[in-house]
Amino acid sequence: MRIGELSRRTGVSVPTIKFYVREGLLPAGELTSPNQASYGEAHVQRLRLIRALLDVGGLSVAAIRCVVAAVDDPERSVHKVLGAATGPLVPRYDREPGEGVEEARKTVAGLIEARGWHADASSPAAEALAVALTALDEVGHGRFAEVLDAYADAAEGVARADLDYVAHHVAREELVESAVVGTVLGDAMFSALRRLAQTDASQRAFGRAAQGRGAGESGGAE
Amino acid sequence: MRIGELSRRTGVSVPTIKFYVREGLLPAGELTSPNQASYGEAHVQRLRLIRALLDVGGLSVAAIRCVVAAVDDPERSVHKVLGAATGPLVPRYDREPGEGVEEARKTVAGLIEARGWHADASSPAAEALAVALTALDEVGHGRFAEVLDAYADAAEGVARADLDYVAHHVAREELVESAVVGTVLGDAMFSALRRLAQTDASQRAFGRAAQGRGAGESGGAE
Repeated sequence: MRIGELSRRTGVSVPTIKFYVREGLLPAGELTSPNQASYGEAHVQRLRLIRALLDVGGLSVAAIRCVVAAVDDPERSVHKVLGAATGPLVPRYDREPGEGVEEARKTVAGLIEARGWHADASSPAAEALAVALTALDEVGHGRFAEVLDAYADAAEGVARADLDYVAHHVAREELVESAVVGTVLGDAMFSALRRLAQTDASQRAFGRAAQGRGAGESGGAE
Repeated sequence: MRIGELSRRTGVSVPTIKFYVREGLLPAGELTSPNQASYGEAHVQRLRLIRALLDVGGLSVAAIRCVVAAVDDPERSVHKVLGAATGPLVPRYDREPGEGVEEARKTVAGLIEARGWHADASSPAAEALAVALTALDEVGHGRFAEVLDAYADAAEGVARADLDYVAHHVAREELVESAVVGTVLGDAMFSALRRLAQTDASQRAFGRAAQGRGAGESGGAE
């Protein structure tokens, strides 16, 4: 197809498509005459991946270049491609970790080992976890880390559901796009569900039936 | 204590403490002479809450004013105060929801009913979930919503752990601060754990033992 049709099929403007080609995100079309190129289904799929990384994942063009390089590398296993695509999507708690981060890193390494997770204690996700634990400690809530095991149980359940879903996608490039979309929007879904489940648990603990329990509680009816 | 000691105890500068008093976030100290005020433990605790909302929750001063008004309202139950404090902390997927959002709202209302959750289908969390589901649909991954029940199971486990932790905090103001910190940093913790558990699940599905499964897979060894 010509670039105009590729643009219509994907909703990406012609100048933007040309920009992606110049930036090395999208392979050039096959030249059919000196000033005309032809594009195929692979271009449609790649544009979907780029838009997912940009619009849903909020990745920079430079980060996307790394992801598509991993996708295009025939030497990499699906496992490594998935890691390259979802690695940059770890949400970071925006604070320089303090001195306690070394202790937190040991906690994380211990957790990974205790769970038997095939995961790297120096990966971005492990580091993000250590930073969150350090931040809890710094604001005087280090004891909240007691919930770590319950959270890890829940994370295993979610990851199983994620991979079950991903396993239904066969083509490699589609699989990566699915993983990116599912990772980012899955986080948003889970946060919202956690808030709803918290509301329910709070209602059960502190609502009508249990009112007047907290020390500062003045007994306002639910 | 004088304002200088309050500043040392909390790590918040004197001009910032005065700013919080002017903005109505912190009650004024008790005047002991025309230009000297005395502060108590309640001020220390309130400053901790303000910093948690600001630094950890990233809330605006206006949003914090709403939270402290809820905390200070003796008519409100602990359940309502927790809702007021953690309601603004729902992460929003930054996109105007498209036409499909009505359908997604029905899905969310159905989920809340099916689970028997004491939660409002028009709450910010329910709306955030509907927006995430709509976004999945818009990027062509509506089927990812199949994982919703597995995610809800996991969210219930996490919320139980959250409330178990919160139940150990007795004073009302401390309880709210704990809920805010736990909600925000708990999201960061869970995202990181989900990524680690995904890595493990991906390794098991697509790593060494299972290589060559995906259609585009070229058999690169793990």
